[in-house]
Amino acid sequence: MSERFSASYLIETSQSLEKAVQTMAGEQSTGTFVKIPGETGELMEKYAAKIEELEELETVDQPALPHAKKGTPIRRARVKLSWPVENIGPNLPNLMATVAGNLFELAPFSGLKLLDIRLPDSFESVYPGPGFGIGGTYKKIGISDRPIIGTIIKPSVGLDAALTAKQVSTLIDAGLDFIKDDELMGDPTYNRFTERVDACMKVINNYADKHGKKPMYAFNLSGTMDEMKKRHDYLLEKGGTCIMINLIWVGLSGIQEMAGHTQLPIHGHRNGWGIFQRHPLLGIEYPAMAKMWRLAGVDHLHCNGIRNKFCETDDSVFASIKDCLTPIWSDQDRAMPVLSSGQWAGQAFDTYKGIQSTTLMYLAGGGIMGHPGGIAAGVESLRYAWQAAMEGLDEQAARERYKVVDEAFEFFG
Amino acid sequence: MSERFSASYLIETSQSLEKAVQTMAGEQSTGTFVKIPGETGELMEKYAAKIEELEELETVDQPALPHAKKGTPIRRARVKLSWPVENIGPNLPNLMATVAGNLFELAPFSGLKLLDIRLPDSFESVYPGPGFGIGGTYKKIGISDRPIIGTIIKPSVGLDAALTAKQVSTLIDAGLDFIKDDELMGDPTYNRFTERVDACMKVINNYADKHGKKPMYAFNLSGTMDEMKKRHDYLLEKGGTCIMINLIWVGLSGIQEMAGHTQLPIHGHRNGWGIFQRHPLLGIEYPAMAKMWRLAGVDHLHCNGIRNKFCETDDSVFASIKDCLTPIWSDQDRAMPVLSSGQWAGQAFDTYKGIQSTTLMYLAGGGIMGHPGGIAAGVESLRYAWQAAMEGLDEQAARERYKVVDEAFEFFG
Repeated sequence: MSERFSASYLIETSQSLEKAVQTMAGEQSTGTFVKIPGETGELMEKYAAKIEELEELETVDQPALPHAKKGTPIRRARVKLSWPVENIGPNLPNLMATVAGNLFELAPFSGLKLLDIRLPDSFESVYPGPGFGIGGTYKKIGISDRPIIGTIIKPSVGLDAALTAKQVSTLIDAGLDFIKDDELMGDPTYNRFTERVDACMKVINNYADKHGKKPMYAFNLSGTMDEMKKRHDYLLEKGGTCIMINLIWVGLSGIQEMAGHTQLPIHGHRNGWGIFQRHPLLGIEYPAMAKMWRLAGVDHLHCNGIRNKFCETDDSVFASIKDCLTPIWSDQDRAMPVLSSGQWAGQAFDTYKGIQSTTLMYLAGGGIMGHPGGIAAGVESLRYAWQAAMEGLDEQAARERYKVVDEAFEFFG
Repeated sequence: MSERFSASYLIETSQSLEKAVQTMAGEQSTGTFVKIPGETGELMEKYAAKIEELEELETVDQPALPHAKKGTPIRRARVKLSWPVENIGPNLPNLMATVAGNLFELAPFSGLKLLDIRLPDSFESVYPGPGFGIGGTYKKIGISDRPIIGTIIKPSVGLDAALTAKQVSTLIDAGLDFIKDDELMGDPTYNRFTERVDACMKVINNYADKHGKKPMYAFNLSGTMDEMKKRHDYLLEKGGTCIMINLIWVGLSGIQEMAGHTQLPIHGHRNGWGIFQRHPLLGIEYPAMAKMWRLAGVDHLHCNGIRNKFCETDDSVFASIKDCLTPIWSDQDRAMPVLSSGQWAGQAFDTYKGIQSTTLMYLAGGGIMGHPGGIAAGVESLRYAWQAAMEGLDEQAARERYKVVDEAFEFFG
C-alpha cells in the first residue's frame, strides 16, 4: 500500500449523496463527463481518489449556494477523500489543485467547504516548516512564557518614515514587544520601505543597545520576488528581525521562495481570508490553509481575536489558535498565533479559558493607544490582564489588583 | 490632483448605508476603532479612501452571509471607492490588500463582492501584461482568425509518459491545435515532468517537421519557483511552446516572477476560482481578478464555457470572455480566453452569438473523444461548428451541411 493524503469536507447536495461524492472523487482524479479510452480499471484502482468516510448530517430547506442541480431533500454531510501521494509528489500548488481545485464549482453541490488536510510523512522531509516558529520568535525578542504584546502602526496610510519612527520610539518606550506595519503599508512614495527601515531600525537598535532587549518590527515587504528579496536583505543589514508577507496575494510558491531566502521570521498576514472562510459552506477552513502556510515556511499566522470587529465567531478563532499550536509532525512546525482586531485587556480572560495557553502574539491598536492612562498604561493593562488570567484570577479580581486593568474595563468595557 | 485607482463593489448591509460604506473606506485606509494621535485631518484628506459612487439597490429579507450586525431593512448597493496611487505604488500584492484585504470580514456587511478594479496609467509602464497574448499564441501555433481547438489529457491521473505521448500522437494526428495537462497532473512519480516533456515533445517535434505546423502543449509546471524555472528551461530546450501555472496557489508574486523568466506563453489555470466567484455576494468577480493575472503576465485565461458542467451561469461566462478580450490599455494586454468544461460542437453557436468573436481557445474532452465518428471527427465537428456559427448558420443549417456536426448533435445533444 502506498502512502495516501486525505482531505475532509462539509458538503451540501440535493442529489444522491453517494453519487455526488463519487463526482467529487472523479473530478479530482480521472475527471471527464464521458468514458474515454485508456481509463482502465487498473488505473482507476491505483490512482483514483477514494471515499474514506461519508457521514450524513441534517437536511435543510434552502440551498446554501445558488446554481446547483435542484432537488429534494437537500442533505448535508461530512466526507473524507484520499489520494495516493504518487499523484502529486510533495508539491503544494498541485496538492491544492487536488484537494480544492474545481470542487467548489461542481454542479451537484449547493455547498462545499474544505475543512482539513492530512499529509503523509513524506511531506515532512521536503517541508521543514517555519524556520523560526515559536521558539525562534521568543528568542529574537528576548522573552518567553508570556504573550508577546504588540501593536500595528496607525494610521495605516499617510505617515512618513520620520513620523513612523517617532511612533515606534513612543511604542517601544511604553514597553511593547512587537510592532507591525499595517498590511496597507508597503512601499508608498511618501514612506519608502528603505526610508522606513532606516528611520525605525535606528530607534530600535538604540533601544536594544540601552536595554538589552530588542522589540521586533515586522516590516511589510510584499511585492515581486525581486523586491521582497532586496527588501529582506536591506532589512537584515540594518538589524531588522522580522518580515511580513501578504500571504494570499504573494501565493504559496512566492512564500516558499521567500522562506528559502529569509534569515528572519515570516509574519504571515492573511488579508483576503474572508473570501475563503466567511461562508460556512464555501471555501476553506483555517486548519487546512494554515497547514499550507506553515509547510511553506510561515512563522507567525494571524487568527483574529475573540469579540473582534469582524464577523468571525469566537469558536472559529479558538479553533484557529489551537490549530497553530498543534504540531503537524513536531513542535518546530507550529506557528506563533497572532491575535488582533478590536483587542484590549478584556478579552485576555476568555481567550485564556478557551485555549489554555499564553504562547501567542496579542496585538492591540486602540486597545493600547486609547487607554485613559496613556500608551504605557495600555501596554501594562494587556500584560497584567494576561498575567491575571494565567494565575486563574477572574476579571473582577484582576480589576481589583491592577489599576490599569480596571481603567481599561472602565473605558473599553 | 494625484492619480487615483478605484474599485467597485456589490454590498449588503442592515446598517446605515452611508456609515457602512465609510467603515469600508476607513478600514482600507486609516483603519482602527478608536481615534488615535497622528490621525490628522490633513493626512485623512490626502491619503484616505474616497467614496466616489453609492447607488442603492433592492432590499432583501434574509442576509446573504451570517454573523453580520443585525437590523432592518437589509439593503444592497453598488459602491465605488478610490485611493491615491501613492498609497501603494504599482505593487500587486499591496493593491489587493487595499481593494480586497479585510473588507470581506467587516461586521456591517452581510455581503461584499469586489466587482472590478480600475488602474491608473502609471501601472502600464510597470506591468506590460502578457508577453505573448493573443497574437503571440496564434503565431506559435501557426494559425489565425479562428478558434484554437484543444483538449486536455485524460485520465487526469495515472497515465505514464509513454501513454501520454501515445495519446498526444493520436490527438495531433486528429488535427488538434492545442493540448494541455490536466491541473491535477504535475510531476507525479509515475510520469515525471521531464519524462513527459521528452516523450511528448518528440512526438510534437516530429509532427511539426512533417506538417510545418506545431500544435501547442501546455505543460503544467506548477511548483516552487526553482522547480518552475528549471522545468521551463528544460521544456524550452526540448522545443516546447507553452507553460501552464495553477494561478491561485502559485500566487501573484510567483506568477510575476515566472513571467519575468519565461520565454513561452503562460497558460493560466484558475482552479480554486469557485471560492472567489461562486457566491453572488462574497469574493471577487472575474474582471477584477483577471486584470491582476493579466498584469502579472498571464497569456491564456480560463473562462469556463456556456452550459458547462459547473455552476457558473452563461452570462457570467460571456462576461469573462469579453473581459479577456477587452484591452486594459492596449490590444497587447488582452488575454486569450480559454473555454472548457463539458464543451462540444453544440455550444459554438450560442457562444458566438454571445461574444461575436472567434478569438479563443475551445477545449473539449469527451466532446472530442466521445464523438461517434472518432477523435478526428470530434475535432472536425468543433471546427465546422465554429465555421458555421461565424458564417451565420444556425444549428439546423450547420447539421445539414456538416455530417460530423450532425453526429455530434445526435450523440451529445
